[in-house]
Amino acid sequence: MLGPGDDAAIVATPDGRVVATVDVLVDGVHFRTDWATGEQIGRRAALAAMADVAAMGAAPTALLVGLSAPPGTPTELVMAIGRGLNEEAVRAGAGVVGGDLTRSEVLTVAVTVLGDLRGAEPVRRSGARAGDVVAVAVLSRGFRSPAAAVGAYRVPEPPLAAGIVAASSGATAMIDVSDGLLADLGHIAVSSGVAIEVVTARLPLNPRLVEVASALGRDHLQWALTGGDDHALAATFPHGAVLPPGWTAIGAVRTGSGVTVDGAPWDQPAGWDHFG
Amino acid sequence: MLGPGDDAAIVATPDGRVVATVDVLVDGVHFRTDWATGEQIGRRAALAAMADVAAMGAAPTALLVGLSAPPGTPTELVMAIGRGLNEEAVRAGAGVVGGDLTRSEVLTVAVTVLGDLRGAEPVRRSGARAGDVVAVAVLSRGFRSPAAAVGAYRVPEPPLAAGIVAASSGATAMIDVSDGLLADLGHIAVSSGVAIEVVTARLPLNPRLVEVASALGRDHLQWALTGGDDHALAATFPHGAVLPPGWTAIGAVRTGSGVTVDGAPWDQPAGWDHFG
Repeated sequence: MLGPGDDAAIVATPDGRVVATVDVLVDGVHFRTDWATGEQIGRRAALAAMADVAAMGAAPTALLVGLSAPPGTPTELVMAIGRGLNEEAVRAGAGVVGGDLTRSEVLTVAVTVLGDLRGAEPVRRSGARAGDVVAVAVLSRGFRSPAAAVGAYRVPEPPLAAGIVAASSGATAMIDVSDGLLADLGHIAVSSGVAIEVVTARLPLNPRLVEVASALGRDHLQWALTGGDDHALAATFPHGAVLPPGWTAIGAVRTGSGVTVDGAPWDQPAGWDHFG
Repeated sequence: MLGPGDDAAIVATPDGRVVATVDVLVDGVHFRTDWATGEQIGRRAALAAMADVAAMGAAPTALLVGLSAPPGTPTELVMAIGRGLNEEAVRAGAGVVGGDLTRSEVLTVAVTVLGDLRGAEPVRRSGARAGDVVAVAVLSRGFRSPAAAVGAYRVPEPPLAAGIVAASSGATAMIDVSDGLLADLGHIAVSSGVAIEVVTARLPLNPRLVEVASALGRDHLQWALTGGDDHALAATFPHGAVLPPGWTAIGAVRTGSGVTVDGAPWDQPAGWDHFG
């Protein structure tokens, strides 16, 4: 790796392959500067992008950050975002190796993450087989909107290693839950050509989500099934496999197609449309 | 490499290292949708980012694209940007392997480029030595503003191989000219701990730039020395080296510090401040 003074970074890839993904977070869409500090925004951005690498069963090694900020943005905010990104990267065993800073009317953080498979095969979305167990691992707790949940929104807890241990435990398919659990399980179902059954009684619910949903008269189950803000990985494991720490079985893979919840096809909106 | 359906792409890196860089282009700052088609925007974004990899002496292998667009953006514009990115990537021997699409109030294209050194050592900014020849290779012609030059603005001509041939011809230092020729030569001077002399009579001037500057009563030399829009690489080569095709000698490296133009220290604004 070269320092920030060169045109590009050089990252070691002893595996002979590199895992690469990009995630863009936009002020007012994915975060709000009035709800979160720069450091928290940086940490969320790093975590969201690193989760995509973890979902392949790889370890994050390097981050590149494209930061766009309005003229007049306090230097301290930009520095704080950088600190947050770097802290989360270092916690995951990676580092920020490069970036681009430009002006824009909207604060935008584009994070590219490179990752290392360490000789293992990547876990794709297409490997689920009938009979497999469906499981989730929560990477961080959060909500998109209720003001009462701002505390939870702010604090990511990123056991990114959940992806790596899933891969080494024989996970047959894996995905980063970013569109909502059902929507993302649907992606596995389509890619693998299988049906997926979810049993809601098994969902590892966030007690704060249940509490806030109840206070607001909303359905906590629908939030848990369709919200994109509780950062998690979903994976399938062979029948009878011992799930690694951090993973909770929530259902099963069957022949067929589509996703069912407690035996019924899910007919609610499946997730959060980031582009809608 | 995996298809676009997985969380991350897998890119082969037989060299055991990967070159990585990110470049962000913002509507109204780096391009204007009323001056350029989506395809042209995509091509410019790909070229700008790939030039950073070329400036290390590496060949681009894979692009990841983070695209943010306002709600209501015509799908055709988004598709056209993607086509332009892919066309330019393929011309350079690379491909678009992943991306993220999200909404924002401002159309923003963040392009990450991965590159392969093919066993060669990266060409850094810090390797220039007194006695070296300073040279430039123009990657594409363009202007930032005059309406009369819209045609030139729109058409990138990307001989990105200029970076690779420079590396194999023994270039001692290299940089992507994005801040303006003098500003970027200044980066080499600082990193290498040397002085750089530029001889304006040797600059490979764009005839259209001379014509437009003259019509507008502006100084074409100042544009050539400080404009960031004529996309180029600058490099230093050992004294007596035969410059590879596409490269033009424009000066020399001396002991000392700073950049001089025709023997005098340059006291004009050194470049375009993307963040100002």
